[in-house]
Amino acid sequence: MKGYIGLDIGGTKILGALFDKNGKVIKRKKKKTKANEGIDKVKEQIFKVVGSLIDDDIEILGIGAGSPGIIKDEAIITFSPNIPFRDFNLKKIMEEKYNTKFVLGNDVNIGTYGEWKESGKKDSQNAIGIFVGTGVGGAIIIDRKLYTGKGGAGEIGHMVVNPEGAFCGCHGKGCLEAYSSKTGIQKEIIEQIKKGRKTALKEYLEEDGDIIKSSSLEKAYEDKDELCVEVIDRACYYLGIATGSLINILNPDLIIFGGGIMESMGKELLPLIEKEARRHTMPGLLDSVDFELSHLSDDAGIIGAYHLIKDALDED
Amino acid sequence: MKGYIGLDIGGTKILGALFDKNGKVIKRKKKKTKANEGIDKVKEQIFKVVGSLIDDDIEILGIGAGSPGIIKDEAIITFSPNIPFRDFNLKKIMEEKYNTKFVLGNDVNIGTYGEWKESGKKDSQNAIGIFVGTGVGGAIIIDRKLYTGKGGAGEIGHMVVNPEGAFCGCHGKGCLEAYSSKTGIQKEIIEQIKKGRKTALKEYLEEDGDIIKSSSLEKAYEDKDELCVEVIDRACYYLGIATGSLINILNPDLIIFGGGIMESMGKELLPLIEKEARRHTMPGLLDSVDFELSHLSDDAGIIGAYHLIKDALDED
Repeated sequence: MKGYIGLDIGGTKILGALFDKNGKVIKRKKKKTKANEGIDKVKEQIFKVVGSLIDDDIEILGIGAGSPGIIKDEAIITFSPNIPFRDFNLKKIMEEKYNTKFVLGNDVNIGTYGEWKESGKKDSQNAIGIFVGTGVGGAIIIDRKLYTGKGGAGEIGHMVVNPEGAFCGCHGKGCLEAYSSKTGIQKEIIEQIKKGRKTALKEYLEEDGDIIKSSSLEKAYEDKDELCVEVIDRACYYLGIATGSLINILNPDLIIFGGGIMESMGKELLPLIEKEARRHTMPGLLDSVDFELSHLSDDAGIIGAYHLIKDALDED
Repeated sequence: MKGYIGLDIGGTKILGALFDKNGKVIKRKKKKTKANEGIDKVKEQIFKVVGSLIDDDIEILGIGAGSPGIIKDEAIITFSPNIPFRDFNLKKIMEEKYNTKFVLGNDVNIGTYGEWKESGKKDSQNAIGIFVGTGVGGAIIIDRKLYTGKGGAGEIGHMVVNPEGAFCGCHGKGCLEAYSSKTGIQKEIIEQIKKGRKTALKEYLEEDGDIIKSSSLEKAYEDKDELCVEVIDRACYYLGIATGSLINILNPDLIIFGGGIMESMGKELLPLIEKEARRHTMPGLLDSVDFELSHLSDDAGIIGAYHLIKDALDED
């Protein structure tokens, strides 16, 4: 039997799976990344995950992987925000150790590729992924391939939606991420609480700690907590504006919305986003694009990595 | 000898040229489009231009053309804003009449393609064209090819740069075009004049008629006319914001600025645009992109059309 390995190297955990030739998961493994123990430790953790997936009965045709950060030549992690990779040639290391082809991509790109590959719209040529979580990530598929520009394309969270608006972690002002990410939402909620606004979110914030959970926002939104509705609606307003601009620029046939917030509240939020996008798209362009919610959840990364290596080998 | 014909079918005039195999113009012809006399008249005018370019000594290998509007399959003008084309299959007509290969593109796309092909940056893979004229047009080149999405991509003038801002002709609000096109600039000038602002532009406006000339803006800007500087700087501010967002989304290696305003004032305006773009781009991304001013002027369309047909034939 022959198979592929898909890896999702995250800031806190490494997820891996062994896939058969048809994309069925045969085995899966999860380990902590241990990024704070240095790069050799991270490498060791990756090896442990891959080692436990290798099976004597299955010939590994190749390994695909996603990692946070800027990726060069499907090989090198130039820089990663939460793992100490610096110009780190993971491809060389993996191909030498496992004697098989290895391809690497940015985690959001790979996740989007997985969602796009498994989407219901099989004839999609050009698609955009918008992922609303701690930040707002994005990815672009053009002509059925991941588009990465010079390596850093798809920073949809840093589209400017309000030029002199809220400060963003990127150093800019008025980025989409500053309004529509969980970080941006939480910041606004805290500010409003400080101003004396009453909200059920105060308790949730204390329980959730560092960053508010999507499930907490969902609960408060369903209960029609006034502040929560206000802040979530504002997030959707700006998501709709960015979506409208993206449609005008790229005229895609599919936009996939994912990430924690869209996974828990997407059905309610998608109509709000679409309504706002409609206000800002050129006549006709909105009709040729479908909106979809992501559905692979935590498996998007490994499934995308499987498709990436499979497609790379099919092309050879 | 062998050659190609390049056509630029505009709202008011049709420009055509006969090119030799190396892209040198052998002959050129210009005729009025006569769009108000109906589609048969326009067709006749196109035939007249092509007819006068055909030369017994030169075998025509193919014809390329640009037209305003939404173009399908490099063949059909689905809709054009200023010529009465509706689902008009120009490819079929031209190939039947001239018995040679014909390819068609949107005029801004074709102009950008020409500028990109003749740019100093020969290794450019992914580029964006931003054209500031009566409106703000745009075009995208990805992987060394024109990118058109479902046929309508590159509407950069309709990126939202100020969500609840000025009304735009497209029905939206706060589009780049509403601030940075000559139409948007003129609208603001007229409003300020009505409010009693003193400006040299008042006279220019009366002289220029329908739409203010780029040369009038240039003169007033050079004379440091207060209102002119204010409105032009605002146009650059929003161009910079859109440019920043575009770099974050597409991470291109080249952006070409063209159109009447950039042709006359580009050297002064480019630093303003770049300064604002820098405020809004992700760290690192701005360093991998070059800014260039267009240099083909009115010939961008015919030269782009020449490259389009040449490249299409080379691919066959």
